[in-house]
Amino acid sequence: MKTLIGVLGGSAAAAEMERLAEEVGREIARRGAVLICGGRSGIMEAACRGAKEEGGLTIGVLPGEHRSEANPYVDVAVVTGMGVARNAIIVRSAAAVIAIDGRYGTLSEIAFALQLGVPVIGLNTWQVSDEIQHARSAKEAVDLAMAALKRRNR
Amino acid sequence: MKTLIGVLGGSAAAAEMERLAEEVGREIARRGAVLICGGRSGIMEAACRGAKEEGGLTIGVLPGEHRSEANPYVDVAVVTGMGVARNAIIVRSAAAVIAIDGRYGTLSEIAFALQLGVPVIGLNTWQVSDEIQHARSAKEAVDLAMAALKRRNR
Amino acid sequence: MKTLIGVLGGSAAAAEMERLAEEVGREIARRGAVLICGGRSGIMEAACRGAKEEGGLTIGVLPGEHRSEANPYVDVAVVTGMGVARNAIIVRSAAAVIAIDGRYGTLSEIAFALQLGVPVIGLNTWQVSDEIQHARSAKEAVDLAMAALKRRNR
Amino acid sequence: MKTLIGVLGGSAAAAEMERLAEEVGREIARRGAVLICGGRSGIMEAACRGAKEEGGLTIGVLPGEHRSEANPYVDVAVVTGMGVARNAIIVRSAAAVIAIDGRYGTLSEIAFALQLGVPVIGLNTWQVSDEIQHARSAKEAVDLAMAALKRRNR
Repeated sequence: MKTLIGVLGGSAAAAEMERLAEEVGREIARRGAVLICGGRSGIMEAACRGAKEEGGLTIGVLPGEHRSEANPYVDVAVVTGMGVARNAIIVRSAAAVIAIDGRYGTLSEIAFALQLGVPVIGLNTWQVSDEIQHARSAKEAVDLAMAALKRRNR
Repeated sequence: MKTLIGVLGGSAAAAEMERLAEEVGREIARRGAVLICGGRSGIMEAACRGAKEEGGLTIGVLPGEHRSEANPYVDVAVVTGMGVARNAIIVRSAAAVIAIDGRYGTLSEIAFALQLGVPVIGLNTWQVSDEIQHARSAKEAVDLAMAALKRRNR
Repeated sequence: MKTLIGVLGGSAAAAEMERLAEEVGREIARRGAVLICGGRSGIMEAACRGAKEEGGLTIGVLPGEHRSEANPYVDVAVVTGMGVARNAIIVRSAAAVIAIDGRYGTLSEIAFALQLGVPVIGLNTWQVSDEIQHARSAKEAVDLAMAALKRRNR
Repeated sequence: MKTLIGVLGGSAAAAEMERLAEEVGREIARRGAVLICGGRSGIMEAACRGAKEEGGLTIGVLPGEHRSEANPYVDVAVVTGMGVARNAIIVRSAAAVIAIDGRYGTLSEIAFALQLGVPVIGLNTWQVSDEIQHARSAKEAVDLAMAALKRRNR
């Protein structure tokens, strides 16, 4: 089974945040992990684009009812038709999650991850718990995610 | 159709917080509103007990697969079998929500409410947004919830 | 906790089938049970109308994102935002279900009920299993549902 | 975006049915399509094994809360924690579905597919609608699925 790393973040974001997300996507692919996210625009699209640049695999767990909702860098569109409740699926499926920027949707995902014991790495995001490990670069974020899932699997 | 007020909070809570939740439940019933919550113990049970003391109706939206999971003061058990994803259902169904105390599960519900535009009243809970109206008493919390839903329905 | 009887059926139905559904709703209310259904038009609306005529309580588990989707006879709208996946919630919450007429949506609900061990009473509906008890009148259907849930609770 | 073909069937099945499922999995991979299924044992495991024999990619949409529930041939485990409601996700995500054998869970998936307009190919399965195209071999089933999704995309 492949290792999935979740990328959490909003469908609209500043260019600087999207550059960070793209680099996170590249790093995830370089480690041979699969990227799972909400499959839409903004942070999600930038991260998927980064993963595809490095030949990675991308999974988009969509809120709506049609795969056309996916960004162009999603390989596998999981069409839930369940709206925001799909946030719980992204988090449950990931071995660790990296939250970048983000507003309330991202906050709900961080909260689910903390509740379910999925390691959370933060990049310029909500500071709501000491259990979130904050990183200063895309590379550090993915390093922390890989280390966290190794501890979790032990 | 009846007006539903959501009560959000953890399944384990300090006695003081439960007393507050019970009073919130009583106030909701006194206004003729229906209480909707996660249907379990702690804050949820205390709020349901309060509502029943005043002859109110209580809806418990359960995460698990069996109605036996409901606390004894739930009138109508909605059995979702969807785990934490049921948090989105509680929030969507409520005209306004009152969050009392709470940890990560409550945080996910607050985040969903803020994302979906459902008014959030806070009682000794997460302070993650200026959009949350903080109350100092059970009565004030229900007053604020009733006022918020009137504005919303206008 | 109140006993919930599910009514399954389509959002468009012949007048004769709606008359049957209305009588089923009346019978459910006369026994003091709560009616739970998908909350929309057709069979669901007719059953809710019948239950309200007899002073019963009606729960509508809606597929969409807004309570405005509910028919006028729904007392408590549970807004799932989960589309057809909400069919599983109706079935899980009911102590027994009565399927009236119906097309593929109803078939999915019957299948879930059979899979989850919820007794199914059929009125002019899908004949896909010997485990479905077929009734010839609204009264007989509700009699069979009440008997089935008593056996189940024993 | 990759084309997903769903395989529907039970977690326990006769050896002959599992051989059929394995061949369906092989055929799906040979066409370059991705296999999506419920990720568990029986028909699902046989189909995933077949797809992996031909170097294909397999997605398992799990009902429970842990990826450990997946069969050994699942590449990407989507962990829903939503029980049988996850059946709707499999169907929505697939461009066409192939139902093999199966009991009530499979029937709920067939019903969802028919309701949502996803083409259904049947192999020794429920005969509940003229809209199901019945095939006599694994190869014919996948041929019919590929033809149906081409018509659908047109």
